[in-house]
Amino acid sequence: MIAYLGPKGTFGEEAVNVWDPHATHIPFASHLEVLDAVNNGKAQRGIVAVENSIDGGVRDVVDYFIHKKTLKIKVCGEVIIPINQCLFMKPGVKLQDVQVVISHPTGLGQCARNIHKTFPNARQKAVESTAEAVGKMLAMDIPAVAIAGKAAAQPGAVIVREKFQDNDNNTTRFWVVGRHSPSPTGNDKTSLVFETFTNAPGALVSVLNIFALGGLNLAKIESRPTKKAMGEYVFLVDVEAHAADVSLRDALKMLKLSTPWVRVFGSYPRWRSKATE
Amino acid sequence: MIAYLGPKGTFGEEAVNVWDPHATHIPFASHLEVLDAVNNGKAQRGIVAVENSIDGGVRDVVDYFIHKKTLKIKVCGEVIIPINQCLFMKPGVKLQDVQVVISHPTGLGQCARNIHKTFPNARQKAVESTAEAVGKMLAMDIPAVAIAGKAAAQPGAVIVREKFQDNDNNTTRFWVVGRHSPSPTGNDKTSLVFETFTNAPGALVSVLNIFALGGLNLAKIESRPTKKAMGEYVFLVDVEAHAADVSLRDALKMLKLSTPWVRVFGSYPRWRSKATE
Repeated sequence: MIAYLGPKGTFGEEAVNVWDPHATHIPFASHLEVLDAVNNGKAQRGIVAVENSIDGGVRDVVDYFIHKKTLKIKVCGEVIIPINQCLFMKPGVKLQDVQVVISHPTGLGQCARNIHKTFPNARQKAVESTAEAVGKMLAMDIPAVAIAGKAAAQPGAVIVREKFQDNDNNTTRFWVVGRHSPSPTGNDKTSLVFETFTNAPGALVSVLNIFALGGLNLAKIESRPTKKAMGEYVFLVDVEAHAADVSLRDALKMLKLSTPWVRVFGSYPRWRSKATE
Repeated sequence: MIAYLGPKGTFGEEAVNVWDPHATHIPFASHLEVLDAVNNGKAQRGIVAVENSIDGGVRDVVDYFIHKKTLKIKVCGEVIIPINQCLFMKPGVKLQDVQVVISHPTGLGQCARNIHKTFPNARQKAVESTAEAVGKMLAMDIPAVAIAGKAAAQPGAVIVREKFQDNDNNTTRFWVVGRHSPSPTGNDKTSLVFETFTNAPGALVSVLNIFALGGLNLAKIESRPTKKAMGEYVFLVDVEAHAADVSLRDALKMLKLSTPWVRVFGSYPRWRSKATE
C-alpha cells in the first residue's frame, strides 16, 4: 500500500502510477502525514515530491528527513515525472468562449503567461486541488476550463490541450520511501545530510573535497537552515553511488570524522526513463 | 521613498522602520512589484525579505536577482530582525475565554504548537495579512485574539504576550535594494551568484576553492535550480568582503575565468545590531 499526497488526481498520484501501476494507494492530506504513515508502519511505502526543476526543493519533505527525531524510514527509490498541465473542458465548448479558468494556485502560477494569452478576458478561480478544479468546471453553467494533470481526468471532461505550462522544462522528482534501502544495482544514488564543524559555509569546501578526492560525483546539493540561528546551515547532497560501494563507504567514514553530524537518508537506483527525463 | 511588501503592519514594515525610521515608505502587493518599482526608478529604495532562519531563502526575491534580464538594482544593505509574534486582544478579554485565533497562515504556522497549548478549543481563522488579523479581531463580537508583529498595532488592541512563536530562533534577513552599492566600510558582505561549467554540483568544489585559497569566508551558500533542467543549479554565496577589496577583486577575476556566468548582486555593510542578532 502506497501513501501519497492527495486528493486523487494530483501529480503525486501520477508518480505512484508510474512507480507501480498495480499498487493500491491511499491519499493523505499533507506530506507530513504521508511520511508519518510510513514511519509509524501504517503504510509500507510512501511517495513524496522532493524537488521541482523550477521551484527547487520541497521544504517540508526535506526538513522531515533532517529534523525528525525517530526517523525509521529510508529513501528507497526515485521517480521523475514531467509536469504536464492539461486543459480540461466539456465537449463542444470553444476556447474563445471560456469565461472562467479553474485550477490549484500552483497550476494557475505555472500557466500564468499562457492563461493571459489564451484567455485574456476570463476570470481565474483558485481551488484546493487540480482534481477539484475539474469537478468545479463540470458543474459550471458558463463555459469554463480546468487546468490539471492527466490523473485528474473525470468522465465528461476532455483534454483539449497538453503542456499548457509556461516553462516546458518543468519536472518533479519524487522520493519513494519505505523501511529499507534496496541493494546496489551499479547505478545508484545516496541522499544524505551533514552539518559542518564551524557552522560556516566556508567549512563546506573541505567536506566536499572528501567526495571529490574519492572520485564521487554529486548529483545535487542544497542548503537548509539548521533552524538554530541565522546563517547556520546543513547541506543535503545526492552522491552518485550506493552506500555499500567501497568508494562511498570510505568517504562516509571520513565524513563522520570530519563533521559533527551525518544522516544517510538512503541509497536507491537512479531513475532512468528516457521518456520522462 | 522606500518600497516594501505591504499591507501596513507587516514585518517588512518593521524592517523599514529599523533601517530608517524617518523614511517615507509605500506598500506594494508583492516582492516582484517592490523590486520592479526600484528597478524601474519609481522608488529609490526597496526592502525585501531574503532569508528566514527557519524557512530558508525567499525564492521569489532570490530568483528575481538571478533571472531578471535587465537588472539595474544592487543590494546596498541588510537588516536582520527577530520575528516577534505578539498576541493582540481587546482590553479585559481573558485568554481562557478566547474562541477565535486570527492571523496570516504564516503566523498560524509559526505559532501552531503554542496555539494548541494556549487555546485548545478555539477555532483558527486565516486572513490575508497580520494587519488584517488585528482589524478582524477588533470587529468581532466574541472573545478573539490576533497574532501579529508589533507594527500591526491599532488603537483598541493591546499586546498581552510577546514571542508567541514556537521556535525562538526565528529571525528574518532583509535586503535593502537601490541603484548603487555603498563604498567599503571594512566590515562588508558581497552577494553573488554563479553557474558552474559542467552544471554538476561536483564542479562546485573547485569554484569554492577559489574563495578558500583567497582567505575569503562565506557567510552563506544556497543552491537554486537553473530552471533549464532537473539537476542543474546555480549557487548563491555571500562573501565576507567588499567587491572593491583586493582579495575579493582577485577572486572575482578567477571566478569569471572558471565559470560560464557570474552576477554580483552588490556589496554592503554587514548588519551588526547586538539587540537583534
